[in-house]
Amino acid sequence: MITSTSNAHVKQLQLLRKKGKERAAQDVFLVEGIKMYQELPKERLVQTYVSESFYRKNPDVFPKDGQAVVLSDRVFESVSDTKTPQGVLCLVKQYHYELGDLFGERPFIMALENIQDPGNLGTILRTAEGAGVTGLLLSSDSVEVYNPKVIRSTMGSIYRMPFYYSDDFHRDLRTLKDRGIRLYAAHLKGTGAYDREDYCGPSAFLIGNESKGLREETANLADVYVKIPMCGQVESLNAAVASAVLMYEVNRQRRR
Amino acid sequence: MITSTSNAHVKQLQLLRKKGKERAAQDVFLVEGIKMYQELPKERLVQTYVSESFYRKNPDVFPKDGQAVVLSDRVFESVSDTKTPQGVLCLVKQYHYELGDLFGERPFIMALENIQDPGNLGTILRTAEGAGVTGLLLSSDSVEVYNPKVIRSTMGSIYRMPFYYSDDFHRDLRTLKDRGIRLYAAHLKGTGAYDREDYCGPSAFLIGNESKGLREETANLADVYVKIPMCGQVESLNAAVASAVLMYEVNRQRRR
Repeated sequence: MITSTSNAHVKQLQLLRKKGKERAAQDVFLVEGIKMYQELPKERLVQTYVSESFYRKNPDVFPKDGQAVVLSDRVFESVSDTKTPQGVLCLVKQYHYELGDLFGERPFIMALENIQDPGNLGTILRTAEGAGVTGLLLSSDSVEVYNPKVIRSTMGSIYRMPFYYSDDFHRDLRTLKDRGIRLYAAHLKGTGAYDREDYCGPSAFLIGNESKGLREETANLADVYVKIPMCGQVESLNAAVASAVLMYEVNRQRRR
Repeated sequence: MITSTSNAHVKQLQLLRKKGKERAAQDVFLVEGIKMYQELPKERLVQTYVSESFYRKNPDVFPKDGQAVVLSDRVFESVSDTKTPQGVLCLVKQYHYELGDLFGERPFIMALENIQDPGNLGTILRTAEGAGVTGLLLSSDSVEVYNPKVIRSTMGSIYRMPFYYSDDFHRDLRTLKDRGIRLYAAHLKGTGAYDREDYCGPSAFLIGNESKGLREETANLADVYVKIPMCGQVESLNAAVASAVLMYEVNRQRRR
């Protein structure tokens, strides 16, 4: 059992929790909690860490890798991203999707530009899996998907939803269009309500930054502007909420 | 200008930021940021506080109450709930709605049981205004609406959306039913997709706690269980997302 926060494992975990660059360099990310552990595909697991008290209560729940490193509760707290850790943390191999992995059988893509809030990105990823999205295209200035707060909000969808950070967002959006995918933008320029369009064909949705919205040059690439009607004095919806409303409209239409 | 954090105003603001009991006792809450200031109904404003640097840049933006108390930037930071404060903070009178205020012309009520995450409640409130909800009914063990994190997520909808904390949630749910409002619960027991129901009549939706869902006795009060279909391995959606999907389905139907 590791009982010192100056242990090399511990220093390493703290670094990986804080630094996206370090996660990229080592090609791993951290997941926390029993649900994230249970849903983790075995072949991606690098190492499991458990707290002493968790291990005492559940000595037999770690068949996946044969052995888990045990940390004293105090040490575990120092590597955890939550205030009241469940006591399980895994080091997991990063994913390396390509643009082509986002298409699925019937493309349904969320294209996110400069989303900054980790909770929003994680929630979009979770909802996307639920709604049947085939993949997420992200501009390179979006928040890193391996940020622990994003991972936590995905509730396991990170293991299953293809995503691709584009080094040339506009070029990749044009590629979608060239492949016959209709590109919709939720935008103030939109005059028609989002639910008046037919999303049964290959579809992609542009979602912009939480406070600034879509860049004009990006919005210009859209085939259709749609609006989500809003009552009262509401000017915009939260990015994860707007995404959810659009995604579930596609889901609704495709179920009929 | 106030330059000391031991000033009585400052002590008071810090207390009001941290303690729900203190907010209730004084019948006020705090709002931050220029958007929240601009949308604030004048008659509810008790006092405006601005940071020194904000005041230097915008000496003329405070006609509402005639005078604002200026705090040095360092002191302002000590009372702000954000890391990079915009420099405007207001003390505002609390709202006192009654159950009857939630009904509107055509009742569309969100009934929230034990929602705990401030961001979720604030986002639900914001989306509710956008979707045309007539009021929010909350169980008394839900997070306090005047929590600064809730207020921030409402983006101003707090000023316009009626809400009522029930001291007897089940009794009040029965009152809704007695008034002819159909009570829907998003629940795992649901067999029919949510979009198969007709929400053009008086409708209310039960939404449960983020991890535990609805209490069984509460779910038992529902007239209809509905489910939001989910692809992949998703077991549930974020509470604010599930609420948004339901609310915008009502909005969609009522627009037709």
